[in-house]
Amino acid sequence: MTEKQPCGQGKGPGGVLLVGELFNVSRKEVLENAEQRNAAYFHDIARKQVEAGADYIDVNGNKNLGEEIDLLTWMINTIQEAVDAPLAVDSPNPAAIKAGLALARNGRPMLNSITAERERFSAMLPLVLEYDARVVALCHDEHGIPTTAADLLPVARRLVKDLVSAGVPADDIYLDLLVQPLAMSDQAPTEVLNSLRTIREEFPEVHVISALSNVSFGLPNRRALNRVFLIQALTLGMDSFILNPLDEALIGDIYSTQALLGRDRYCSKYLAWQRKVGLGKG
Amino acid sequence: MTEKQPCGQGKGPGGVLLVGELFNVSRKEVLENAEQRNAAYFHDIARKQVEAGADYIDVNGNKNLGEEIDLLTWMINTIQEAVDAPLAVDSPNPAAIKAGLALARNGRPMLNSITAERERFSAMLPLVLEYDARVVALCHDEHGIPTTAADLLPVARRLVKDLVSAGVPADDIYLDLLVQPLAMSDQAPTEVLNSLRTIREEFPEVHVISALSNVSFGLPNRRALNRVFLIQALTLGMDSFILNPLDEALIGDIYSTQALLGRDRYCSKYLAWQRKVGLGKG
Repeated sequence: MTEKQPCGQGKGPGGVLLVGELFNVSRKEVLENAEQRNAAYFHDIARKQVEAGADYIDVNGNKNLGEEIDLLTWMINTIQEAVDAPLAVDSPNPAAIKAGLALARNGRPMLNSITAERERFSAMLPLVLEYDARVVALCHDEHGIPTTAADLLPVARRLVKDLVSAGVPADDIYLDLLVQPLAMSDQAPTEVLNSLRTIREEFPEVHVISALSNVSFGLPNRRALNRVFLIQALTLGMDSFILNPLDEALIGDIYSTQALLGRDRYCSKYLAWQRKVGLGKG
Repeated sequence: MTEKQPCGQGKGPGGVLLVGELFNVSRKEVLENAEQRNAAYFHDIARKQVEAGADYIDVNGNKNLGEEIDLLTWMINTIQEAVDAPLAVDSPNPAAIKAGLALARNGRPMLNSITAERERFSAMLPLVLEYDARVVALCHDEHGIPTTAADLLPVARRLVKDLVSAGVPADDIYLDLLVQPLAMSDQAPTEVLNSLRTIREEFPEVHVISALSNVSFGLPNRRALNRVFLIQALTLGMDSFILNPLDEALIGDIYSTQALLGRDRYCSKYLAWQRKVGLGKG
């Protein structure tokens, strides 16, 4: 539950690992700047994400299959001109993942993502091994996205077992429990929160990651719901997040949560963050 | 952990029970208005606390022992002119508690508070029974306030055992685990959070309550820390809070937390709250 250090291997308080989500071409601004080959935009946002604490920079060019590899190649090269942070190469398409991982030269890359679907698993696994990548493993298979702990846990266990037996260290696996929107199922988020404890107990070395924004889809005041879910998940053992690192309120919540969980000696990281934010605003 | 309904017997989402904290003479504004016998102030704030969802209105006149009973008597009579909500009579002084409970006529009152100190326990227990009061039981004894789960749990167990064996129903007991400021001990809040699970498992009918503001004492950005602690505590099984019900962000966090824990069917209470706040602002 409130383990001392469910460390995501990141630089954040208590070792939380943050993947900066802003370079996704599903965002109109990103797509336009990528199509216009506007390097300054990517340099600027890359630096800002790293300065704000991102351990990884996610790069997703998956708008149009015909263009994906071109967009991804240009974005990765451009981002690496500006920052030394490693990249999370984000696509459901193994060819794009391969092209991206081949270019990623800042430390160990992250493959985002593999699933338990047989075809995708088989296509992605060799890339994890070839590029020595950390890997985001989405807990769904051919039957779709589970919405109960009873359905979710077997998929999570199978992913961990198959990855580990293929030679991927447990510590390189970031399970994404794929929380469904609260508006679709009023029990789905709590099923994920309950699964979290079980997974951390069964696989203490495996990380658990989440992209925050899905949980609030279709409801008013989404940002507040996302923040609360982050606090709950971090409290119950999640250790990694795919998020907007420029959202100061969200990052502040991470510092507060970790301090209150006893993961910030003398509250020194909390205090340093408050000074930084205070100075930034003053 | 994320029990479906750790219900505090309140009207809030998931049954969370809210005690409105605003009538405490340690607040200068309250003391001045009480000394000036400004009934309009008390009527107004009493109504606002009830409209905002307070199940109980806390009344504390404990500024100056010589005046306490006079202040408390006048405040209780005045508040009861305006609202039907029951009162939490708040004092360490048994004579003040007795005077207050004798006047409280809105439903069942709450005695705030008994402790495990022998003298205070012996003086307060007969009042709990005589006035059929719900009771806030502070987990400290002659040895002071515990800061570890190992020290806290025996005090909590003794309080529950002694109250129940004297005839107080378990469901009328609101244990306050007395979280010490994070600034004093960077492990104290997590020790309380960890104790929470144990207490809810051992005594599923007993409630757990907390006054929020203490945890953040001495640190910057106290309000953010208080909000995060509320979300963590509610997620781990606390079901009652002594707080400012007029703090819309805090109350909004309660709605979000309960909805994400699956305690709000179809998110209907979350949606009603968002409509209410939206209309209030629009």
